Amino acid sequence: MARDPRYLVLAEGQFGPMTSKTANGCIRYSPERVVGVLDSRRAGQTAGQVIGFGGDIPIVATVEDGLKLGPNALLIGIAPTGGKFPEAWRGIMRSAIASGLDIWSGLHTFIGDDPEFASLARERGVVIHDLRKPPENLQVAAGRVRDVASTVILTVGTDCNIGKMTSSLQLRDGLRKRKRSVAFAGTGQTGILIEGWGISVDAVIADFIAGASERLTLDAAKEAEIVLVEGQGSLVHPSYSGVTYGLMQGSLPHAMIMCGQPSRTTVNNHPWVKIPPLRDFIAFHERVLEPLRPSKTIAVALNTYDLSEPAAREAIARAEDETGLPATDPVRFDPAPIVDAIERFHTSRTR
Amino acid sequence: MARDPRYLVLAEGQFGPMTSKTANGCIRYSPERVVGVLDSRRAGQTAGQVIGFGGDIPIVATVEDGLKLGPNALLIGIAPTGGKFPEAWRGIMRSAIASGLDIWSGLHTFIGDDPEFASLARERGVVIHDLRKPPENLQVAAGRVRDVASTVILTVGTDCNIGKMTSSLQLRDGLRKRKRSVAFAGTGQTGILIEGWGISVDAVIADFIAGASERLTLDAAKEAEIVLVEGQGSLVHPSYSGVTYGLMQGSLPHAMIMCGQPSRTTVNNHPWVKIPPLRDFIAFHERVLEPLRPSKTIAVALNTYDLSEPAAREAIARAEDETGLPATDPVRFDPAPIVDAIERFHTSRTR
Repeated sequence: MARDPRYLVLAEGQFGPMTSKTANGCIRYSPERVVGVLDSRRAGQTAGQVIGFGGDIPIVATVEDGLKLGPNALLIGIAPTGGKFPEAWRGIMRSAIASGLDIWSGLHTFIGDDPEFASLARERGVVIHDLRKPPENLQVAAGRVRDVASTVILTVGTDCNIGKMTSSLQLRDGLRKRKRSVAFAGTGQTGILIEGWGISVDAVIADFIAGASERLTLDAAKEAEIVLVEGQGSLVHPSYSGVTYGLMQGSLPHAMIMCGQPSRTTVNNHPWVKIPPLRDFIAFHERVLEPLRPSKTIAVALNTYDLSEPAAREAIARAEDETGLPATDPVRFDPAPIVDAIERFHTSRTR
Repeated sequence: MARDPRYLVLAEGQFGPMTSKTANGCIRYSPERVVGVLDSRRAGQTAGQVIGFGGDIPIVATVEDGLKLGPNALLIGIAPTGGKFPEAWRGIMRSAIASGLDIWSGLHTFIGDDPEFASLARERGVVIHDLRKPPENLQVAAGRVRDVASTVILTVGTDCNIGKMTSSLQLRDGLRKRKRSVAFAGTGQTGILIEGWGISVDAVIADFIAGASERLTLDAAKEAEIVLVEGQGSLVHPSYSGVTYGLMQGSLPHAMIMCGQPSRTTVNNHPWVKIPPLRDFIAFHERVLEPLRPSKTIAVALNTYDLSEPAAREAIARAEDETGLPATDPVRFDPAPIVDAIERFHTSRTR
């Protein structure tokens, strides 16, 4: 990951708490890398005002205004369904490249494969980083994770965009504070962007989902005693569940953290799919792994951003009651209950 | 699918009952298209002698000998793990292209992307068909199969290479004999080769597995009242289960046919993965679909090729007893019990 990036984050027309996932993840976990956000609807406001974090990071209306903030790169700040490039952004991209900004993108549409952008970038000496481009020479999975000594923990969830990555990063930070040796294995564009390495498991050829997940887990296990693998999608998500399932069977976690959002009762954009009760859903996940590696769910991470604090506390108590597991919102409150559960689990299996 | 192919089937060093899946599928279901098989170990023998069907189709040692049989195409007759091109075959490929044979391949390695083969093919005016190349403009799945009137039936199974495609084709033929309107939706290279259309769902970008399965099912439903979707892999296969799961949730079958092989107790090449008891495994499949579309398993198709006839009959009786469902080996014996089950199911849901 070449020169230290200073991002102008592109989220034109889409900067918001639930609409600009990549922008938000980058601002939450690497704010020092973000010089500004481009969204003409919000120009003049700050990130803190629009998404509730990111403090004074300014929002600008144009690339020209953004350049005054001293970026060296443009980061595409959205992760839309299907991962296509929004054609309306072509002009913005052209002027960013013409201004000498490198491009960082986690879209499925590889920016470097676009003839116009590729040729402009060549002329201007600009580097295009397509984070979802899979590594070469992937192998199909073969249960190789069974051989590693590290404790592997996977976040799973009731839906997409519900806090699997964010929870993993909060837990990573919580474990680091306790001097635990911990690695975060990013499986999506935002996680990779934040951590500086990883594999976008939803962007590999389908036969290699588990193989990519396996390789990622093995690599992370070389670095640390506890590996937190970033989950993707949901086993009930009608579009992405194959990736979720392959990631589970490739990363072969010893334990899982179930992520949910108490206010969501159906899958986002798919009101015909009811989210199952947490207890049943946890049992289903354990059944999925059972033939390959018995695994258990050790805690519940709830995303309560849209609840009042008393309602959030109540939802957490309800989840604990229903599942018999420690629960909290590790972003809003102290992640300690889940960090404790991970430490207990790790200690018990390595004793 | 351009000119009517007359295949010389390449299976050098690998022609056999369980090692040359694509060759065998093509010989079983489109023998009229196969002029010969290339495997120098078996030269002089016939397909019938080596794999038990295919009658007098001759086996030859070299492309030169094969040319005497009048082929216009070379078909790569294997489907190896990972789908890589065996480099040892480079010389054979070169002489096939030099001799003017078109190339048909279902490997993950696209033959048309190989600089040497591509340039040779251009010089010689030879067409390279890479069957696994995904269609353009795939969408992510959105439960669109819920809107079709046709009855959708998916084969699922306890392992790879256990008879899901073969069973589907036997059932298709059985239903056609009874004048039923039926379509076979091929999801792998061999099925596509036999049927002349389809999508290799394991070769799409992982996020589009369910989307590709959905599109395929919708296309097939335009053609027929009963759609038989070819299953892939297995929910307990450590390498390919993500594809299996995404195919299930994308094709949203009304009913499933469970395929198994009584003599297999562990997943092929993965002795650490036990195949679950049929009844549990069927319940698990139904649970996977339950949140999206309640589905049930209506019959069991067993692959008994390696059992004596009395042992095969006994295994079938045992499966019926265990599952309470009609069972048979639809290749070895009359497929009627499963064809009956499909007709009954179709009639009951369309009444």
